[in-house]
Amino acid sequence: MSEVFNFCAGPAMLPTAVMKRAQKEFINWNNTGSSVMELSHRSGIYMEMAATAEADLRELMSIPEHYKVLFCHGGGRGQFSAVPLNLLPAGRTADYIVNGSWSKAAALEAQNFGEINAINVRSEDEQGVSSLLPSQAWPLTENAAYVHYCPNETVDGIEMNEIPETNGVPLVADMSSTILSHKIDVTKFGLIYAGAQKNIGPSGLTIVIVREDLLGNAQQATPCIMNYHTAANNDSMYNTPPTYAWYLAGLVFQWLKALGGVDAIAKVNHEKAKLLYQAIDNSSFYHNNIESQYRSKMNVPFWLKDESLNDKFIEQSELQGLMALKGHRIVGGMRASIYNAMPLEGVQALIAFMKNFEQENI
Amino acid sequence: MSEVFNFCAGPAMLPTAVMKRAQKEFINWNNTGSSVMELSHRSGIYMEMAATAEADLRELMSIPEHYKVLFCHGGGRGQFSAVPLNLLPAGRTADYIVNGSWSKAAALEAQNFGEINAINVRSEDEQGVSSLLPSQAWPLTENAAYVHYCPNETVDGIEMNEIPETNGVPLVADMSSTILSHKIDVTKFGLIYAGAQKNIGPSGLTIVIVREDLLGNAQQATPCIMNYHTAANNDSMYNTPPTYAWYLAGLVFQWLKALGGVDAIAKVNHEKAKLLYQAIDNSSFYHNNIESQYRSKMNVPFWLKDESLNDKFIEQSELQGLMALKGHRIVGGMRASIYNAMPLEGVQALIAFMKNFEQENI
Repeated sequence: MSEVFNFCAGPAMLPTAVMKRAQKEFINWNNTGSSVMELSHRSGIYMEMAATAEADLRELMSIPEHYKVLFCHGGGRGQFSAVPLNLLPAGRTADYIVNGSWSKAAALEAQNFGEINAINVRSEDEQGVSSLLPSQAWPLTENAAYVHYCPNETVDGIEMNEIPETNGVPLVADMSSTILSHKIDVTKFGLIYAGAQKNIGPSGLTIVIVREDLLGNAQQATPCIMNYHTAANNDSMYNTPPTYAWYLAGLVFQWLKALGGVDAIAKVNHEKAKLLYQAIDNSSFYHNNIESQYRSKMNVPFWLKDESLNDKFIEQSELQGLMALKGHRIVGGMRASIYNAMPLEGVQALIAFMKNFEQENI
Repeated sequence: MSEVFNFCAGPAMLPTAVMKRAQKEFINWNNTGSSVMELSHRSGIYMEMAATAEADLRELMSIPEHYKVLFCHGGGRGQFSAVPLNLLPAGRTADYIVNGSWSKAAALEAQNFGEINAINVRSEDEQGVSSLLPSQAWPLTENAAYVHYCPNETVDGIEMNEIPETNGVPLVADMSSTILSHKIDVTKFGLIYAGAQKNIGPSGLTIVIVREDLLGNAQQATPCIMNYHTAANNDSMYNTPPTYAWYLAGLVFQWLKALGGVDAIAKVNHEKAKLLYQAIDNSSFYHNNIESQYRSKMNVPFWLKDESLNDKFIEQSELQGLMALKGHRIVGGMRASIYNAMPLEGVQALIAFMKNFEQENI
């Protein structure tokens, strides 16, 4: 099969250079005669690799020393439970900003572990265009244990670019689909988490970046593998970590550093998103329903005006090697996820296909 | 580097044939032009692979239809929490049989989620030889919610071959280091779990086999990714599963089927263990301290009579390509983990090295 561009929302495509390197050293890593996945996580050579991966992520995101970086099992949903278990003591309330499918799911799950105040900040106008309440107007709880939000909603294609001001209340962000896509100021956050399977590596790994002073107050019924304090005290090796995913994440971090880091990839991401939204907006055949300032640079949902052409669009795009464009079942239509690993050429190929398809079917 | 034999307790070596196949199709799986780890877990082609893996495991273990097979995140320690969260309602007690390091850790963790009765069944005679109380003599709680035990203790090298009779109380087994090593009667168990990184695949995946009637009574504060009922109702895809580990597990199941299944590998395992224990017992240079009927066929700990030679033993064995023989830090000495993927030739090479080392250092 010739080259394909995979627009899957996650598990998503990984950088081609990373995958080729991983294939080459798959059964003999660093001249050990073994695969990296066959080595003890407590062997010197593995621990060195693991520490380098953490150091590279710290460098890429400018993570200060008073933040711990944890390599955890599971994905975003695991953290939907782990966050309140670790940060929400009895008698306190946590605010959950709801602006899409994942933040809503996070709020629902958190209710099993404490008092949650879910705050809807999304609205739709008469034309069905979605917008968000600016964070200055959010009705936050005074003295909340934390404020949770999802800066980029993968299913809905909604992104918040400004970091909310919470006046000292720790800000917790689910950055699963936006981490490493552009520079952020980590010091504005109490905790950041991200399932790996979008911008980091394969599924089964989640990165947690947490300010040290928030550790140590987990609820008693916190499963040990979800306890941030335990993980921090054991370099994420209290239990056997997902060792192969950690290694692949490390390769992705190296790839990103070699490209010039987060600022460099952010420029490409900006360009990719700009071109794709322009193509949608300049057409009367496709449309997107998010107010422009809140449009996601990572997940671009769009709809054909004539939805009866959906199956044909998917079928023909796949023949062109443009894979996994079907929208999430909740919102329908199409979705192009254009994470860091998606090259500009992939977006250009998609746009060319969309124009052709429009001409042939208008 | 020439061929190595990796005796690591886990993450452990995987079958060479499996690793070569995985390498070959690493970046283009089933002519998709993508790696299997880059595909949506909800794509048809992925779900078909996932279902085949489950069917193959069911066939290998003769798992009846009224048992669910779940592919979960995490490892054994994750299940130390998940088991009581799912099976231990308020007001009930669970019995935990303690015969080594892992069963002890399981009992400790479970105390965070309910009433636990830990029952020590291990004893040592004056010569330091460990033995176990036969299960008929275990002081079990009447009407316990379940009885938890660990049939093979990876650190200690202790294995129970008989399946305990619990008179109707569900039996829960941590089979992380023994699953698929020999045939067991699944119907004797309420629940079986096993971290993948010994006999199944890479770390980050845990298999849970659970009798249907035990589902649906999880505690409220059960994290959604640990809820067996939720996983069962969603074919282990309520959240994104560790997709690559699932795929590799599927390859291991295929490999095992092609070898002739569990009975066939059990014969090899029996032979490997017999040869290695014979070599230890026939020497006055090495020794093992487990009563013979309780010796593990998967994890063979042994000690040099002269412990000052430990470092030399490790150093020279590694030069021969015999890797990761250092014993667990809790018990010291040496440990050869000889799971399904370890060929007979690996054990023979170890024995030859041990004899040479003895002759040169006696």
